[in-house]
Amino acid sequence: MTSRPKALLFDVFGTVVDWRSSVAREGEAFGREQGLDGIDWTEFADAWRGLYQPTLERVRRGTMPWQVLDELHRMSLDRLLADAGIKGIPEAALEHFNRAWHRLDPWPDAVAGLRRLKANYIIATCSNGNVALMVELAKWGGLPWDMILGAELARHYKPCPEAYLKSAAFLRLAPAECMMVAAHNSDLKAARACGLKCAFVPRPKEHGPKVKPDLEPAEAWDFVAKDFNDLAGQLGC
Amino acid sequence: MTSRPKALLFDVFGTVVDWRSSVAREGEAFGREQGLDGIDWTEFADAWRGLYQPTLERVRRGTMPWQVLDELHRMSLDRLLADAGIKGIPEAALEHFNRAWHRLDPWPDAVAGLRRLKANYIIATCSNGNVALMVELAKWGGLPWDMILGAELARHYKPCPEAYLKSAAFLRLAPAECMMVAAHNSDLKAARACGLKCAFVPRPKEHGPKVKPDLEPAEAWDFVAKDFNDLAGQLGC
Repeated sequence: MTSRPKALLFDVFGTVVDWRSSVAREGEAFGREQGLDGIDWTEFADAWRGLYQPTLERVRRGTMPWQVLDELHRMSLDRLLADAGIKGIPEAALEHFNRAWHRLDPWPDAVAGLRRLKANYIIATCSNGNVALMVELAKWGGLPWDMILGAELARHYKPCPEAYLKSAAFLRLAPAECMMVAAHNSDLKAARACGLKCAFVPRPKEHGPKVKPDLEPAEAWDFVAKDFNDLAGQLGC
Repeated sequence: MTSRPKALLFDVFGTVVDWRSSVAREGEAFGREQGLDGIDWTEFADAWRGLYQPTLERVRRGTMPWQVLDELHRMSLDRLLADAGIKGIPEAALEHFNRAWHRLDPWPDAVAGLRRLKANYIIATCSNGNVALMVELAKWGGLPWDMILGAELARHYKPCPEAYLKSAAFLRLAPAECMMVAAHNSDLKAARACGLKCAFVPRPKEHGPKVKPDLEPAEAWDFVAKDFNDLAGQLGC
């Protein structure tokens, strides 16, 4: 049996929170307030998230300077609105809509599962979201993190190794004393390459009814759990 | 009336936790286990803390490279034990005793007050303690921080302005949207010079019966409270 870790590092978007339905809900409110008709806000949420990896990749490759995710989200939002021919939205409304990513609802099991895990382990984020975003997201959903780690503190976006290694280093733990928890095989693959343990918690509803990636573990991860309560049970909490 | 801040940044050693009696308690356990006689562990705690500012000052002045507080505490511990002629202690016991600073008890009002404040404000540390130390201290005492900020993330020790300004910047807040909460006038003076609001919460028992600094506010701070529950009441929580 795998020895137990001291800290659990969590991917957040998709693993802890349901970004798709939350951003769609925020889009509907934005559309109503701004009198925008004929926009499918779930498709808009998918398009916004669709620009995520290409934008991060520009930062990872160094063709764009370091910027926190709030700024990258805003860049993508401005582009999507321009592409849709939407103009003249007040700055405060744009900024509020950009912060939709600070108001994402946790999956139903997330808070209860995290509370159980927190009793026996350090629980921290290891997300590409910036500190302010993660702090507000935690307050929005009642996520009981011990610490917010990840891209902004490492100044590298996942899946760069620094994002995982510096998160462990801030806790003064060896990589093998940390376990990455994610709904995405690619995130776990990168974490494992850095020496972290890995727990896979699939989130089959992340992308809605059509797209279904990451339903199965791609490797023999240390733990595979159906939700955070199941993970807590497997980890003796 | 001063406008209310969005985030409260807390000094920790002395303001949130009672380092003196906790380190003395840990010293007594260390002495018993190692068979050390004739040491006054309260005096030892004072001497250990006495090396704190001189050691930090060497880092601030650049005569010593950046190191986290765990390492500086260990340097001071090694020196104090050598000065007392104590030798041959196993490394694991030294490391455990050094982590006495991770096992400091909160003042009696601290947890309840922080919980009330957390309902309406972001509550974060702005301490010279490193992330790992602060995470373990929070778990030890049940301190419900939203985030651990301060010296390690800023890579500058208080009272350097970067320690305050970078803490606000990680939250994407202006300095005036943050309020420093501390039992030490000098900490508040440095925070105010950076534009933060300031709340003074004296801790008359910090240094025991003999030394009594910081019993009174040295300036007209934005808030003066007798403990964290009083502060929560004054801040509408």
